[in-house]
Amino acid sequence: MIQTDIAIVGAGPVALFAIFEAGLLKMRCHLVDYLPQAGGQLSEIYPKKPIYDIPGFPIINAQELVDNLMKQAEPFKPTFTFGQRIESMEKKGERDFVLTTNLGVHIHCKAVVIAGGLGCFEPRKPEVVGLDKFENGKGINYMILDPEKYRGQKMIIAGGGDSALDWTILLSSICSELTLVHRSEAFRGAPDSVSKVMNLAKEGKIKLLLNTNLLSVDGKDKLESVSLKNTKTNEEQTIQTDHLIPLFGLSPKLGPIEQWGLQIDKNAIEVNTEDYSTNVQGIYAIGDINTYKNKLKLILCGFHEAAMMSHSVYKYINPGIKYTMKYTTVNGVNEF
Amino acid sequence: MIQTDIAIVGAGPVALFAIFEAGLLKMRCHLVDYLPQAGGQLSEIYPKKPIYDIPGFPIINAQELVDNLMKQAEPFKPTFTFGQRIESMEKKGERDFVLTTNLGVHIHCKAVVIAGGLGCFEPRKPEVVGLDKFENGKGINYMILDPEKYRGQKMIIAGGGDSALDWTILLSSICSELTLVHRSEAFRGAPDSVSKVMNLAKEGKIKLLLNTNLLSVDGKDKLESVSLKNTKTNEEQTIQTDHLIPLFGLSPKLGPIEQWGLQIDKNAIEVNTEDYSTNVQGIYAIGDINTYKNKLKLILCGFHEAAMMSHSVYKYINPGIKYTMKYTTVNGVNEF
Repeated sequence: MIQTDIAIVGAGPVALFAIFEAGLLKMRCHLVDYLPQAGGQLSEIYPKKPIYDIPGFPIINAQELVDNLMKQAEPFKPTFTFGQRIESMEKKGERDFVLTTNLGVHIHCKAVVIAGGLGCFEPRKPEVVGLDKFENGKGINYMILDPEKYRGQKMIIAGGGDSALDWTILLSSICSELTLVHRSEAFRGAPDSVSKVMNLAKEGKIKLLLNTNLLSVDGKDKLESVSLKNTKTNEEQTIQTDHLIPLFGLSPKLGPIEQWGLQIDKNAIEVNTEDYSTNVQGIYAIGDINTYKNKLKLILCGFHEAAMMSHSVYKYINPGIKYTMKYTTVNGVNEF
Repeated sequence: MIQTDIAIVGAGPVALFAIFEAGLLKMRCHLVDYLPQAGGQLSEIYPKKPIYDIPGFPIINAQELVDNLMKQAEPFKPTFTFGQRIESMEKKGERDFVLTTNLGVHIHCKAVVIAGGLGCFEPRKPEVVGLDKFENGKGINYMILDPEKYRGQKMIIAGGGDSALDWTILLSSICSELTLVHRSEAFRGAPDSVSKVMNLAKEGKIKLLLNTNLLSVDGKDKLESVSLKNTKTNEEQTIQTDHLIPLFGLSPKLGPIEQWGLQIDKNAIEVNTEDYSTNVQGIYAIGDINTYKNKLKLILCGFHEAAMMSHSVYKYINPGIKYTMKYTTVNGVNEF
């Protein structure tokens, strides 16, 4: 059983800054994230994208921000459980919670902070029978982590948004054969990307199938072919392929947290803005996962919420003890 | 008359970030600060001090943070009035304010944001008749901006806190003669600084007068001498000097803002945490100058307040126009 002061659900930027703020108040944190590393969406979805609205950084790459926040948290020796999801929460009494992950790891803590971003991202899947047969490395993926994996291979991308367009442009020079399948005639992505994709099709560098739906997938141990249907002509065709990547967006889900008795409004947890506490004493929610009047889903707002939460948790787990805030400019940071 | 969307009272870190947040929403800002430059306390009082609790910066010097915030605000072409203080505010109607500085500069704006930090810092002055005769460069100062100015000169420092001790230590090797005058026997400063000062006195490098009060100041065009009285022996003495620096601390004052009809609680402006608005529609207060339940006087909290305020001001000055937030990660920053 892991013992800590604060269990933090999530390990995105706001969760990482919470370690620092809690640490200044001498509280230890253990973080649990379903992703394999810290950083949340920043590391997983857009590590190389520049962010412009972190105060004090006219521009910073998402991964660089995560690295900085990890370094800032370091003096307070956080611990992590990655690749697991909290499945259940039991409040045994005041200042006494036990969280359990899907792999059966127990975390015993005095307070719980949910900093789960938009929740667990689940890819929106097309309604095609048998997709799951080829998931888990057998040809069908809903996310592209390492484009190099696809070098010299045959691939079908399905979708009509920025993600489908951007990956088509990038993979057109990597795959041996690339087909982009889109159910309609119009793309939802940036005009510039649309015209790049149209040019690639004209130049014969990709195969572009508009007004086309996925019909079925086939293969023995691995994906071997995908059947498609043109919705205008009703023509069907089967294309040999090594990979199919449906990019129909990610659908955020709260997941098991929905069962914890928290007040939920549209997939977000309602909090009191006096300290970002939930309706269950000892449980807080900060960052994109919470909601309140005028909520802005900005990382910088989550930082403020992390600071306010930490001071409230301090009072909660140290009843009767008065704390006078010390400024780091005066006292520096005293590591654990 | 200066025309702008938002007039910001103050030019500290939170005010600077407000330019950026307002800019993302296409609103222009004009800032007014009594200090001669942007940065507030950070630039004026502790430019070289490290700050540890700005999210994403394990450590950053105060002035470096200010420089970064200025650069981040740059695309939105802010304008500034430095060295002046807002003396009066007139609300002529909704979205129609005129602010006037002590030098008669008028600023016409649609909304007012008070980001005045701890207010105007006024040095606590000893009760000695005629001090004002030698202020303004004639020998008496309440702040040391450039220690080199005092090289080879005679100086008296009065006070018993860290500021008096630190400057005594630093100036002991710069001034030709340095006297530290303190009304009591015990210092309020860091023990290490106290023992350094005691050693300097023992070694004859400074003159240390304890239990001693300032009695009077004298001189023709410039300060020439200071008379002192030992409160234990009642002995009086007069010391020839070029400079007298009373360092009795700074006393924050709200100043003329107190007369604007805002709800004030202990030198701070009460705000609604839904958008950091005050009780006067169209006037907001962000950063250290505002107060609300559980308020933390942290720069990072001011950043959040600046973002929330900007979205509220947008709605206030653009009634009926719907705004969909665009993320900088997707759209970048479009400068004015």
